[in-house]
Amino acid sequence: MINDTNVDGLTGTDPPSIPDFPTTPYLLLDPKVAATQYHRLARAFPDTKIYYAVKANPEPRLIRRLAEAGSSFDVASTAEIDICLSQGADPQMLSYGNTIKKAKDIRYAYQRGVRMFVFDCEDELRKLAENAPGAQVFCRLLASSAGAQWPLSRKFGCSPDMAVDLLALAPSLGLDPIGISFHVGSQQLDPSRWDPSIAEAAQVFQALQKVGIELDFLDVGGGFPVGYLSPVLPIDDYGQAIQQSVSRHFGEAKPRLAIEPGRYVAAEAGVIRAEVVLVSRKSYEEDLRWVYLDIGRFGGLAETEGEAIRYRIVTAHDGEATGPTAIAGPTCDSVDVMYKDTPYELPLALRTGDYVDILNTGAYTTTYSSVAFNGFAPLATFCIGDNA
Amino acid sequence: MINDTNVDGLTGTDPPSIPDFPTTPYLLLDPKVAATQYHRLARAFPDTKIYYAVKANPEPRLIRRLAEAGSSFDVASTAEIDICLSQGADPQMLSYGNTIKKAKDIRYAYQRGVRMFVFDCEDELRKLAENAPGAQVFCRLLASSAGAQWPLSRKFGCSPDMAVDLLALAPSLGLDPIGISFHVGSQQLDPSRWDPSIAEAAQVFQALQKVGIELDFLDVGGGFPVGYLSPVLPIDDYGQAIQQSVSRHFGEAKPRLAIEPGRYVAAEAGVIRAEVVLVSRKSYEEDLRWVYLDIGRFGGLAETEGEAIRYRIVTAHDGEATGPTAIAGPTCDSVDVMYKDTPYELPLALRTGDYVDILNTGAYTTTYSSVAFNGFAPLATFCIGDNA
Repeated sequence: MINDTNVDGLTGTDPPSIPDFPTTPYLLLDPKVAATQYHRLARAFPDTKIYYAVKANPEPRLIRRLAEAGSSFDVASTAEIDICLSQGADPQMLSYGNTIKKAKDIRYAYQRGVRMFVFDCEDELRKLAENAPGAQVFCRLLASSAGAQWPLSRKFGCSPDMAVDLLALAPSLGLDPIGISFHVGSQQLDPSRWDPSIAEAAQVFQALQKVGIELDFLDVGGGFPVGYLSPVLPIDDYGQAIQQSVSRHFGEAKPRLAIEPGRYVAAEAGVIRAEVVLVSRKSYEEDLRWVYLDIGRFGGLAETEGEAIRYRIVTAHDGEATGPTAIAGPTCDSVDVMYKDTPYELPLALRTGDYVDILNTGAYTTTYSSVAFNGFAPLATFCIGDNA
Repeated sequence: MINDTNVDGLTGTDPPSIPDFPTTPYLLLDPKVAATQYHRLARAFPDTKIYYAVKANPEPRLIRRLAEAGSSFDVASTAEIDICLSQGADPQMLSYGNTIKKAKDIRYAYQRGVRMFVFDCEDELRKLAENAPGAQVFCRLLASSAGAQWPLSRKFGCSPDMAVDLLALAPSLGLDPIGISFHVGSQQLDPSRWDPSIAEAAQVFQALQKVGIELDFLDVGGGFPVGYLSPVLPIDDYGQAIQQSVSRHFGEAKPRLAIEPGRYVAAEAGVIRAEVVLVSRKSYEEDLRWVYLDIGRFGGLAETEGEAIRYRIVTAHDGEATGPTAIAGPTCDSVDVMYKDTPYELPLALRTGDYVDILNTGAYTTTYSSVAFNGFAPLATFCIGDNA
């Protein structure tokens, strides 16, 4: 029996008794939980525009709930634009937040009414000028992601001096430079990590003021963490730290604040139910047991790469005796191992055919899953508690 | 203009002039090249049964060509079984080579006529006994994959003494134990790496002979390498080394040999055409340039994880001046970087909108691609030179 307000209670060995319920693995998603998370964020970040990062989970019913709750949306592609608009979002609520866009995709977004775009280099700025004339543009700064569990490489952003030059160039190209964005890495545990980039952003604002350009938009990105195996600080701590940083570095000239949460909104709205396909040992000498699930790194749990995100796994045998367990996926690819270097402690009673629930998996799971690796179908989503 | 016998000649900046040609990225696949590779293997491995590893590329037209060429098939799932049977393969030509199988999938395979199954632990052996009574079964040994560019973890296989016990148990469960398999890691460069496992397999054969069980099947797996950026030894070197090992360790009692090539058959049959979406620098001081393609780690190039597989990338500017280049994919995920720690040298003239060709990408690409990460569609396949 599924609780229609929250999925946290789902454990045990029997699949929920819903007609035509798909076989495992699947994601049970409760869009109402995402809306609750949205409201939590809105309270922790007053006077801040919230752009939900659609890439975290683009499920249309979840997007609709968030649009109804008042969310804006950070989109990475034309497909994500289409989803948002089809679910009631206004194009003015969208920010095209991918720094890497094809010219034709910029044109498409512009034709559909999107007017806010990010860039981090001259090439992209000129593409925007040509394909989205007059649009509001903001520049992404390189930021350190030290302290993040799913850290960012140097893939996105540019140095502050380059940002100043590019934002200064924008008006002559017919664009409207509005501000700065950055991202300190996903599942960022340390609330103080936003401060250095906020300080850099303030310097960019000041440098542009000297050449007569008034920026007023500061997007401090996402990265707000979710409690997986370990608890994390409450979201209010992040809100306070960031707002104090902004006050300190911007003083009276406080910019319009924006955040781009994905994981924080969607993760707790979902639980993946999977099946134990096999339990084995490699030799008589080894203590380590291997548990193979019907989901793995290529079936939606891509963020277990390098054992980065350690999900909480619930079984019907919790509380019984445990042993060290490597956990792997069902494909013939030996990279498809989720946890081995730091094994889990799972119940020794766990058997082939048992179900397990992988908690807080509503973000960064379904869309990552491979289209057909080893012939396995992508992770299905099953929405509960929402009759939309 | 596409050459209809081979895709190697595809370079340049203009997309092929085929009506309704899809936008990039896409894989151009020539199934005839896969058949050629199959015949090369057959010559290098006389008296050896070749089970094409369908997971490398399950494109139906490629499977049909291989079935016509006489190939058998190593399948990882029921979906792969369906593809093979729909393309003319006989169930007797299939080996269910995934050690991790659901009971219902074993039943399905058995119902469709599959009679050869692998296992590597007692749990799986008992599942086979229950769901595929009387089937031929072989046990996978743990093997070292030192020397492989896409190495295997300890995910698959068991120790030789455990293999002996399990194969000895099989007849009492109503199964027919036939032999041993192992895998030395994909893109294995060193032909001598098969020898230790062949020696272990011979010991397992001898141990079972002592209890009255005559094994006669030895599957030495795949792993035969493809020349990406660096040349590799000819396939005949692998054939000779392996056959000499078998003679040395098995003497007169030579088993029926089998191999499970995937990469070697399919890689050279395909080329991925991609578009440069953006070229940028992160700061004025840095020499490293970033080139962003419309394909990345989540769009099909999963094997660039850890920069393991380094593909050859052809541009229309080859031969002109180059500079160090990081190469990344188009998603907002900063893990979606293919080459950065060891940058590529790409032409400085390369510009946004140019096409590049990524060679020998017919294996382990399309099915890996995410179903919709960031809203990007999975990698499309376009078959050429084959009117099937």
